[in-house]
Formats: sequence, structure tokens, C-alpha cells
Amino acid sequence: MKNITDKLIEKIEQLKNPTVAGLDTRIDFLPESLRKTATDGESTAKAIVEYNCNIIDALCDIVPAVKIQSAYYEMYAHHGIIAMNKTAEYAAAKGMIVMADVKRNDIGATAEAYAKAYFDGTLYDYITVNPYPGYDGIKPFTDKCKDNKGIFVLARMSNPSAAQLQNLIVDGQPLYLHVGKLIEEWGKDHIGECGYSAVGAVVGATNPEEARNLRTALKSVFFLVPGYGAQGGKGKDAAASFDENGRGAIVNNSRGIMAAHLSDKYKGMTYSAAARAAAEDMRDDLYKAIYT
Amino acid sequence: MKNITDKLIEKIEQLKNPTVAGLDTRIDFLPESLRKTATDGESTAKAIVEYNCNIIDALCDIVPAVKIQSAYYEMYAHHGIIAMNKTAEYAAAKGMIVMADVKRNDIGATAEAYAKAYFDGTLYDYITVNPYPGYDGIKPFTDKCKDNKGIFVLARMSNPSAAQLQNLIVDGQPLYLHVGKLIEEWGKDHIGECGYSAVGAVVGATNPEEARNLRTALKSVFFLVPGYGAQGGKGKDAAASFDENGRGAIVNNSRGIMAAHLSDKYKGMTYSAAARAAAEDMRDDLYKAIYT
Repeated sequence: MKNITDKLIEKIEQLKNPTVAGLDTRIDFLPESLRKTATDGESTAKAIVEYNCNIIDALCDIVPAVKIQSAYYEMYAHHGIIAMNKTAEYAAAKGMIVMADVKRNDIGATAEAYAKAYFDGTLYDYITVNPYPGYDGIKPFTDKCKDNKGIFVLARMSNPSAAQLQNLIVDGQPLYLHVGKLIEEWGKDHIGECGYSAVGAVVGATNPEEARNLRTALKSVFFLVPGYGAQGGKGKDAAASFDENGRGAIVNNSRGIMAAHLSDKYKGMTYSAAARAAAEDMRDDLYKAIYT
Repeated sequence: MKNITDKLIEKIEQLKNPTVAGLDTRIDFLPESLRKTATDGESTAKAIVEYNCNIIDALCDIVPAVKIQSAYYEMYAHHGIIAMNKTAEYAAAKGMIVMADVKRNDIGATAEAYAKAYFDGTLYDYITVNPYPGYDGIKPFTDKCKDNKGIFVLARMSNPSAAQLQNLIVDGQPLYLHVGKLIEEWGKDHIGECGYSAVGAVVGATNPEEARNLRTALKSVFFLVPGYGAQGGKGKDAAASFDENGRGAIVNNSRGIMAAHLSDKYKGMTYSAAARAAAEDMRDDLYKAIYT
């Protein structure tokens, strides 16, 4: 049976681009014309939606997926939640795969409420989940995989201090590898036709050697790869998360695409034209690193 | 200088009750009269606020704090966020300490957005945080401790599968103890007059021996103790998290208080009267276990 990761892989191969555009929309990314309309929580959230929709229009025929970073919406309380859900609706209507980067986690009964919140009657295909509570906090999310939903569970993150817990040595191996093996186990009943489970892992591009270890160890786990671009990861670093067929991962870029107009390279372009140009350059960089 | 934990301890000692009432409000807890007004997301969120306010009225002179479990509000999208914030406002106006149980976590820049979301211009005194990203994901929250805010970082949770990651052995000691020591380190610049830091730890009541180890190891870390009541923890289990002076922890009870009217013991009482009776019984149970 097909799972959501089959759909994601199809979309990636159709566009020849394993990129997810992160929508970590901050008010200071917006052009002056839009920023000046943002005078309170409600108008700021509206300005952010307008910005996001323009970015989505610029990307939807070349980028397969968007990842909405919840934190930047929660900042505007209920107005932010409306903005986040409107962005998801718009991206889904444009045929993109939609991920909500929420990193939720809790004990079983509460995780069930989170699974309902993000998967019942919403347009999110995937959410991110934190593994710290163990399996009973994961099961409510994996139960939704039968409804064509998926999750990415944190294994090895991209931030400088990720190693503080994630690289502690347990039985001669780093904790992230133990977590990776748990993720594989949690997803074994949700493997699609492509051989990848709807239960994936977050594996940063900032540590390619570790990504390579995880890729080798976890044959059925699809990776969401943060850390490309602003965090320092390059195409060749992200390539470590792909299998021998050039599958098995999707690479996130947030600021590098959605705020490309603020970088020297794309200066003078509109934010949507800059986003598209940056997404094309990233696609080419990944293509070269993965397939050549 | 006084920190938020000094304020919490003062309140606990004034009421002689180290209890936090969890507001994990589910629609099936509500009495028929209120439930029938809940026909969509907006009306359900309103009914939940009414229920919460009545519970708060019943508890505010005997229970020092409430903990609002975000998952049960996020289920109703933006309506839920309004309900959560209204509940916080009401509890704060009644003089209670307010905790948002959100278990947020992310890389530094994103954690900063979460810290703004929950601590800038809101009525939350504490939030819960997941330690998996390491220090750069924690610092944005501890930076807010100077503004009289606090956090509880997950160390050893109360759920059945918590041990799956949290009890893995690192250098001869369980992971939760390593995490506990990191929490102590992260909080060392935020210790109040009482000797406890504004950076606390979540330590479940369901594993009293582990709680005792953590209590002994972490002198300056105040504990938020889930797992009492519905999850099986008793007063004597929770007592393991308190120091030799009967300080150092606050014990959460959610269903056992807010849905007490559904249990055999308090059957026939209104939900608010049942909540008050259950909170009094819990206070007496804790008092006996901790102080005698």
C-alpha cells in the first residue's frame, strides 16, 4: 500500500528536487510595503500569510514541499495559528506536500490530543515529533500513518549543541543511533511501496559523517534534513543522507529561500523572484552533489 | 534576588499545599448542560473556558498553581489558543501561579521565537521544555528567567515508556541523571533566595526511587512532579521529590482534580465541588506523606 512518503518521493522525482522550503516567516523578512501593514498581532499574521502565499506561488512548480515552523506563528497567539493553517491550505491547494514543524511530545493520552490537533481535519501531511517520551508518546502519531499521514522524529539535529545529549555514548554507540533504531522499529508497520516508512527521522546536514552512519544503519527510514544554507550545510553535506539510488531524504532550507532577497547574491530582486532563484540554485547544488 | 520559584514556594507554604492542578480539559469531562453548548470549535473552546474558570474559582484559595496542557487546546486550533490564554488570565487574576505545559523545543533561533511566544506579554509564569536539542535550544528560555519567568525541563517523565530513552545507561548512569545535571548547570545563574533555581525539572511520581536519586543529586533544582492520581502515583511516591525541609517540588494532578466528579469517590457532587474536595484530599495525602 502507498504511504505519504511514496507520495513525497513521487513529487520529488517529478520535480527532480529533494528540497523542502521552510516557512519560518519573521516580520523582518517582509518588504517595507508589507511590513508597514503589520501594526498588531492580527495584521502581522495577515501580512505573513500574504508573504507566504507569494513565496508558495513562486516555488510550487519547482519545490515539492513546504515546512511551516510553528514557533514563528505561535508568537502571534491565535492570529498566528490562523496564519499557519491558512498557509498550509494554500500550499496544499497548490499541490505541495505540507509539513508542520511542531516537535510535539508528551505522554500517551496527551500525544493523542496532539495527533488529533495536527492530523484530524487539517492539511498537514507530516509533523515533526520529539522522541524523549518513548513509544507511548509516539504511537498516537504513528496510528495516523494509516490515514496517509507521516512524522519525522528527531534523531540528530543540526544545531551546535545537539551533540550535548544526542552524542552521549550508550553501549558503545551514540544516543542518536539508538534513537534512529527506535524510529526504524516504530515505523516498521508503515513502510510504503518505495521501501521507506511514513515514520521518518530528522537528521541534520551539519554533520555529514553522522548522517552517513544513520543512512547506512536505517534502510527504511526517510530523512528530513535541516541545516542546509544559513546553518552552514552544503549540497555535499546533505548528500550523505541519500541512498545509492539518490532517494531517502528531503533537505530543508528556510532563510536561504524565503529570505533570499536579503542576501547579497539575490539583492535587488523581489522576495518571490529571489526565493525562486535561490530554490533553483539549491536544486542544482543538490542535484550535482547527489547524482554526479 | 527573588525568582519565580521563590514566589511559587511562598504560595505553596501559605496554602500548605504543594499541588498544581492540571487543566487538561477534555470535552467529555464537561457536564451535559455545558457539553450541549459545544457544537463547533469556537463554542467548545468557550465551554472549556467556562469549565476551567469554575474549577479555578473552586481551587484558588487552596491550590497555589494551575498547569494548562496545551495539547487539549491546540485540538481546537485558534479557538483553543484563545481558550488557553483566557484560562491563564483568569487563573493569574485569582492569584494563582500559571504554568503552560507545552514541552517546546527547537534550535536556538526557533527556541527564541517560542520564548517570545510564551513569555512576552503573556500570563504564563512557567513553561515546560524538552532538553533533546541541548543548551542552545534552552538558553532563549533561561534568558527570560531574569524577567521573573521559569521553566521545567523534562528529566524523568511519568509515562510507561519514558525509560526507553531516559533510562539508557551513559557512563554508568541513567540518561535522566545526565539530563538532570545539565538542568542544574543551565539553571545555576538563576537561583533564588530559597536556594532553588527558576530552571526546574520534570520528575515523575511513578518512579519514586529515581526521583529520590535526582532529589539527592540536584540540590538547586525544583521539581514539577506529574503522575500522581490517574497515572498511579501516591502521596508517598511524590514525597521522594521533596527535600529534608519538605520543599523542592510541586505535584501535578489533572484528571484526579478537574474530573473528580466522574470518579466513584466524588459522585453526585458538582464538578467544581468535586474538584475542591479532591484537591483537599490530595493536600492532606501529600501533607501526611511529606511532613509526618
